[in-house]
Amino acid sequence: MSGQKELEFKGYAVTDPSAWSQLSVVPFQPKNFGPDDVELAITHCGVCGSDLHTASGGWGPVSPPLIVGHEIVGKVTRVGENVKDVKVGDRVGIGAQVGSCLKCRACNDNYENYCPNSIYTYAGQYPDGVRTQGGYATAIRAHHHFVFPIPDQLESRHAAPMLCGGVTVFSPLKANGCGPGKKVGVIGIGGLGHFAVMFAKAMGAEVWAFTRGTAKAEDAKKMGADHVVDTTVDGYWNDLFRTFDIIISTVDHFPPGVTLRNIFSMLYVHGKYITVGMPDMDEPLPTIHPFDITLNGCLVGGSAIGSREDVMEMLQLAAEKGIKPWIQELPMKEASKAFEGVKSGKVRYRYVLQQDIAPVA
Amino acid sequence: MSGQKELEFKGYAVTDPSAWSQLSVVPFQPKNFGPDDVELAITHCGVCGSDLHTASGGWGPVSPPLIVGHEIVGKVTRVGENVKDVKVGDRVGIGAQVGSCLKCRACNDNYENYCPNSIYTYAGQYPDGVRTQGGYATAIRAHHHFVFPIPDQLESRHAAPMLCGGVTVFSPLKANGCGPGKKVGVIGIGGLGHFAVMFAKAMGAEVWAFTRGTAKAEDAKKMGADHVVDTTVDGYWNDLFRTFDIIISTVDHFPPGVTLRNIFSMLYVHGKYITVGMPDMDEPLPTIHPFDITLNGCLVGGSAIGSREDVMEMLQLAAEKGIKPWIQELPMKEASKAFEGVKSGKVRYRYVLQQDIAPVA
Repeated sequence: MSGQKELEFKGYAVTDPSAWSQLSVVPFQPKNFGPDDVELAITHCGVCGSDLHTASGGWGPVSPPLIVGHEIVGKVTRVGENVKDVKVGDRVGIGAQVGSCLKCRACNDNYENYCPNSIYTYAGQYPDGVRTQGGYATAIRAHHHFVFPIPDQLESRHAAPMLCGGVTVFSPLKANGCGPGKKVGVIGIGGLGHFAVMFAKAMGAEVWAFTRGTAKAEDAKKMGADHVVDTTVDGYWNDLFRTFDIIISTVDHFPPGVTLRNIFSMLYVHGKYITVGMPDMDEPLPTIHPFDITLNGCLVGGSAIGSREDVMEMLQLAAEKGIKPWIQELPMKEASKAFEGVKSGKVRYRYVLQQDIAPVA
Repeated sequence: MSGQKELEFKGYAVTDPSAWSQLSVVPFQPKNFGPDDVELAITHCGVCGSDLHTASGGWGPVSPPLIVGHEIVGKVTRVGENVKDVKVGDRVGIGAQVGSCLKCRACNDNYENYCPNSIYTYAGQYPDGVRTQGGYATAIRAHHHFVFPIPDQLESRHAAPMLCGGVTVFSPLKANGCGPGKKVGVIGIGGLGHFAVMFAKAMGAEVWAFTRGTAKAEDAKKMGADHVVDTTVDGYWNDLFRTFDIIISTVDHFPPGVTLRNIFSMLYVHGKYITVGMPDMDEPLPTIHPFDITLNGCLVGGSAIGSREDVMEMLQLAAEKGIKPWIQELPMKEASKAFEGVKSGKVRYRYVLQQDIAPVA
């Protein structure tokens, strides 16, 4: 780690919740370094919708200073004595989770992403009481279970957004049997959706991309969609009646009065509609009547990020198949520009911030 | 079929939708008898919630005369030339479906209960244009695929309510992996719920019965529930956090403002909440926010009756394990008394009507 004499913990923080998109560099206290911990100097951090929801207070009140960002790649600067799988200098990533109890039924079943005592990468609290701060920062510490070696074939800027955006769709695709012979619909071709198209295709499914209008149609095909459907065309669902095994919905805002009935009608028997869009607390799903899910016995499910097992499998798949997210890069200080692009829907398709406080050699 | 010289088709019908619970005996035209058909003289018919929803217009306008009832047992009086598996004199049953296309993907996958061209036992239409009329009647004709031989060990009065009420819960239990090592919750111990408790137990699961108050607690234990939970006790869900693989909900009315969040919190990771309660069209499920189904990645599903395969397997299970529904018997002419008992929730736990227009020898 030449060129970096001493690791300082500082990052771009929300300091005034009423001006949440104006970030300023502040120092912060890291967790006490423990024998299971890995510390890294951050080189890249993707910009996730969660960053905006959290920073803006949509998911609950903000306690400043708050540093968001949970699609982190960097170089290992220190490892605890119990850490065997990574060493100083390794290139590693951290997603939206930095800890869990690692003892409960969920943790034992490789579902640590569903551990009731999950510690999220920012706006959370480490076991030692220190607040977690995210990846728009110089450095971070996490339990090694939540630190993932990045395969050599993947560039850091491409690996970063996979660690939340990627695994958030990879995990439900895998959990619900995506693979050859399966038909998968992806609603909304943004950060999550573009990953869903690429991964579902790489897993061997036939993929439909659903997008409003035609602006993203060509992109969706390049990502691997076999079919692109314009959802502004009334009745688009009719030709796809009872087609899908899985629909991944990235939609996180529904106009009042809308129904999901037509979308559910596109699911085959026992097909699954998995929502990975996570709106503000005051935006529920459209009203569902039992009839909407009975005629085909379909299921409406949620999914939260992914497990270590999911992340490792996803990175391996991406390395083998040469999957690269479509990204726009900005220096970290321009995070608010990325926020604007995400809010306005102009992002194509994920922002990745590069370290600019303390560049890592 | 001594004692029944000529089979007349008549039944207890809704003739005036504004007085829907007052049934009167009317003759009706059966479908044209085809080479795949089975005709039976009805001996018993269970009373299902669907009968009330349909007769009262809750599921849409009623076209009189309407004869409801789709938990039918009787004796075969005639078989078409293509019918090989049953013969005249056999004891058979018919559930909520008398036909489907038998050609589509769903039918080929043994999901004919999800065929988009399903023909329901009443308020439907046979391929020849004749309206379907249900089991509060002397006789019925159906495609042999939807006519089920009743195992000798099962009494007709016990088999009848299994053919809709029973299979409606058996099918999702089976589809979602109910068996040894699984934990199953059943919400609402009525007609459907009492079947769900008995079947889930017989399939080897550990079973929790959820019921309002304590009036049905002893009954639920006798049905096989390992645990009974009084849902009028606030916070009942806390001790059951992340417990269940499957929750079968028979609830078909939710008070305004209620949330399912606490119920979903009792599901283990990827656990399934299957709703088999089917309310009137103006009673949707309580509002669901993605957060409610994300923290455990649970799924909310629907289910519609069951396939022939499901019915046969259920009847076999019931025969082997000696499963008997808890029933109250009435002559068919007292159907309106059964309606009252269902509406008021006094039923313990299923009404079965006995033939009284043209008793079958």
